[in-house]
Amino acid sequence: MSAFSQLMDFQRGTEALAQIAGRLGWDQETMMPRGAAEQRGEEMAAIEAVLHARRTDPRLGDWLAAAEAPDAAGRRAVALIGRAHARNTRIPARLATEIARQTSVAQGIWAEARARDDVAHFLPTLTKVIALIREKGAALAEGGDLYDALLDEYEPGATGDEIAAMFGRMRPRLVALREAVLASDVRPAALTGVFGRDKQLDLAREMAAALGYDWRRGRLDMAVHPFSSGSGNDVRITTRVDEADPFNCLYSTIHETGHACYEQGIDQAYLLTPLGQGASMGVHESQSRIYENQIGRGRAFGGWLFDRMRATFGDVGIADADAFHATINRVRPGYIRTEADEVHYNLHIMMRFDLERELMKGNLAAADLEAAWNDRFRADFAVVVDRPANGMLQDVHWSVGLFGYFPTYALGNVYAGCLMQKLRADLPDLDAGLGRGDARAATDWLRTRLHRFGSLYEPRDLVTRACGFAPTEAPLLAYLEQKFTAIYGL
Amino acid sequence: MSAFSQLMDFQRGTEALAQIAGRLGWDQETMMPRGAAEQRGEEMAAIEAVLHARRTDPRLGDWLAAAEAPDAAGRRAVALIGRAHARNTRIPARLATEIARQTSVAQGIWAEARARDDVAHFLPTLTKVIALIREKGAALAEGGDLYDALLDEYEPGATGDEIAAMFGRMRPRLVALREAVLASDVRPAALTGVFGRDKQLDLAREMAAALGYDWRRGRLDMAVHPFSSGSGNDVRITTRVDEADPFNCLYSTIHETGHACYEQGIDQAYLLTPLGQGASMGVHESQSRIYENQIGRGRAFGGWLFDRMRATFGDVGIADADAFHATINRVRPGYIRTEADEVHYNLHIMMRFDLERELMKGNLAAADLEAAWNDRFRADFAVVVDRPANGMLQDVHWSVGLFGYFPTYALGNVYAGCLMQKLRADLPDLDAGLGRGDARAATDWLRTRLHRFGSLYEPRDLVTRACGFAPTEAPLLAYLEQKFTAIYGL
Repeated sequence: MSAFSQLMDFQRGTEALAQIAGRLGWDQETMMPRGAAEQRGEEMAAIEAVLHARRTDPRLGDWLAAAEAPDAAGRRAVALIGRAHARNTRIPARLATEIARQTSVAQGIWAEARARDDVAHFLPTLTKVIALIREKGAALAEGGDLYDALLDEYEPGATGDEIAAMFGRMRPRLVALREAVLASDVRPAALTGVFGRDKQLDLAREMAAALGYDWRRGRLDMAVHPFSSGSGNDVRITTRVDEADPFNCLYSTIHETGHACYEQGIDQAYLLTPLGQGASMGVHESQSRIYENQIGRGRAFGGWLFDRMRATFGDVGIADADAFHATINRVRPGYIRTEADEVHYNLHIMMRFDLERELMKGNLAAADLEAAWNDRFRADFAVVVDRPANGMLQDVHWSVGLFGYFPTYALGNVYAGCLMQKLRADLPDLDAGLGRGDARAATDWLRTRLHRFGSLYEPRDLVTRACGFAPTEAPLLAYLEQKFTAIYGL
Repeated sequence: MSAFSQLMDFQRGTEALAQIAGRLGWDQETMMPRGAAEQRGEEMAAIEAVLHARRTDPRLGDWLAAAEAPDAAGRRAVALIGRAHARNTRIPARLATEIARQTSVAQGIWAEARARDDVAHFLPTLTKVIALIREKGAALAEGGDLYDALLDEYEPGATGDEIAAMFGRMRPRLVALREAVLASDVRPAALTGVFGRDKQLDLAREMAAALGYDWRRGRLDMAVHPFSSGSGNDVRITTRVDEADPFNCLYSTIHETGHACYEQGIDQAYLLTPLGQGASMGVHESQSRIYENQIGRGRAFGGWLFDRMRATFGDVGIADADAFHATINRVRPGYIRTEADEVHYNLHIMMRFDLERELMKGNLAAADLEAAWNDRFRADFAVVVDRPANGMLQDVHWSVGLFGYFPTYALGNVYAGCLMQKLRADLPDLDAGLGRGDARAATDWLRTRLHRFGSLYEPRDLVTRACGFAPTEAPLLAYLEQKFTAIYGL
């Protein structure tokens, strides 16, 4: 057997085991009995150890050196395996173990600190995690930029400087939009009504189907923090239900449907290969956001949803489809990133990006993070943070060592803006379908132009090919300014 | 690190991975989207390959040779690992692969053959499987008895000759009991009523709790063929619902609860070690059968269940608790093992045992199996098999290479008879509790005398310790004759 075949066979087993580990994670959040938590920890550690051993298997280096791929997809697969192998071999085993150990402890301490609003309880742990991740970044960077080396794991090819420049252009326009909207006299109405759990879930399922989710290769379950999980032919989504607020269930379902349609849409030939997943976190987020915001909170699809909601729940206290459009796009100041509207969301990301970059550069100490957070929040949101759980303790990311991950959320929004501009240009009748709850044209377009390629191209190249132009923030900003100017009568 | 510590550490990882493989099996039968079947096949193959590599790891031999266990449990763990290692190394890799390949194909062909009542479609495949399993048995036996070597995997220490002798004593008494019962004028009434799915499941959950199932470490889901799954702190049960026949759901739930209580009751110190599972298939089946039959179909618990059923479903067409006791113990002739009552069940097993032993000895060819099956069925059941799906094609076992497995079902019934005799002697007030739906005393007794030991002892020793006498068929036969003589007025 050729080195290439041996490499691909071995990788196929690794990919299959990674799918299993992912399914265990799904089970843990949806099905696992509470009393199984400790045992599950050992089971997860066992499969992670198997995966780690395979990813650092000494034979990989030999196969990679000798592999002759027969085609472009094969060459890309070899390149992706090689990139991951280089990353894995650069991180000393001692450091990898220590990061795994510290972050699993740190997550628990962070949860306690957030529950008690106790920054001091978290600081010693956060300091250790920051030191470990800086060490990891330095090992990966090999003399290059430490933050870029971390970012590269989530968004290959992106750099901190480019992102900083782009965010620098976006920030004043978003702050200005935010101020104009909040100064407006327009006050979109809130929903009123009774929103039974089963009816919410039925409507969520109907929406997922309307957006192209393939139920034969997926399922919907309940989770405290909704997520999607799995690749290929087993891509599961989760949601949650708040009987006072049906948008919680409906829009989290649309968001996860976007992620899931991406995975389900990847060429079946790439199944269980390095090409068989989405191209990056940013591209993934672009798909969830297009479904959630550009489509799901657009006027056309919203009009259909308004009818479906009244048919499902009866009167919801909203006069007409235009008023409903304003309701699903209400802009409200708030502390919490995950509850933010489209105008505020990227501002939440930008401050995290700037702060985590300073932490990684060594220009900001963990002890000074709270003050830096609160200062920046007041500057961008004109609101004083009332307690740490609403401030620097709100997100889990840093406790588990995720530095370089936050900017991919905003990159996703930027990509979504670009893709939607091109999609609308190519499909002038899009809104007619969306107004009937039929999003097939959009999903087909995304599948053809983007989903099916999986990880065949670098993220930025993939988006450029799909759009016909290199991604910039301009379409997103134009979309946001146009949409909220109209809704708020600016 | 000592050889013993290295061995136990390595084994712990293997046990954890085996739990994961089991959980994937559970997912496949309960949760998996239909379209994921093929991908799941690859995922299962990947983790099975990892398990196989660990179970045949060359270091095992070295560690086993050098391991010095500090205590009895450690010595037993080393012995169990050594036994499995000896088995795994005796089977050539080529043969193991070929068996895995052939049986996975054979199962599909068997399902087709059963659906079409087409024995000829199955025969070539069955012939191949028989040849492969005989080869496996010969490799394991190393000159000893081939069938015993196969049996040893499911019921360590049991021999075909001993079982044949015991079955030889049981068979005439069961045939006589069967004839007497069917000749009786007593005709227990059938249930009538409406048995909604959710109410059945609520009652099934209530019964599982009454029998000692720990919901904090388990859950109940739906499956086409009910099973229990997992060890330690994640032991899940499944059931099915037939709205015309609530006993289907209720008694399959009790049966799986018995298996699950056994696993949940094992000493936590044995978690993820070779001692952390039930001692054998026969001992496992004894626990499911005690819960299902000796307790679940006993007069006392049945009285409570009668009240709960009337409270749940309203009138069920049964006059009183005595009539209900007859209803849940109705004896009816039938072709199908899995639907058999307590009188018929062991007769189904005995014929399979005799037939599979002849197949393994080479005294019976696959081509002659149907005639042999039908002759034996007519002899023991006085009924002519009407079609192969009701005859030799009814069970999946042989298609997947399970030879030596069937007798453990009857052994389980024999063990259950012994255990219940001792349990009743030790707990004279048992029925008072069962009559209130409180089976805690029985579960506590089983936990203390049997469950907690896991695989610390050989199956037969374990049952002997729990009962205070070596297991024989006498208590089971006495129990059956007494019970059915009373119900049928013999």
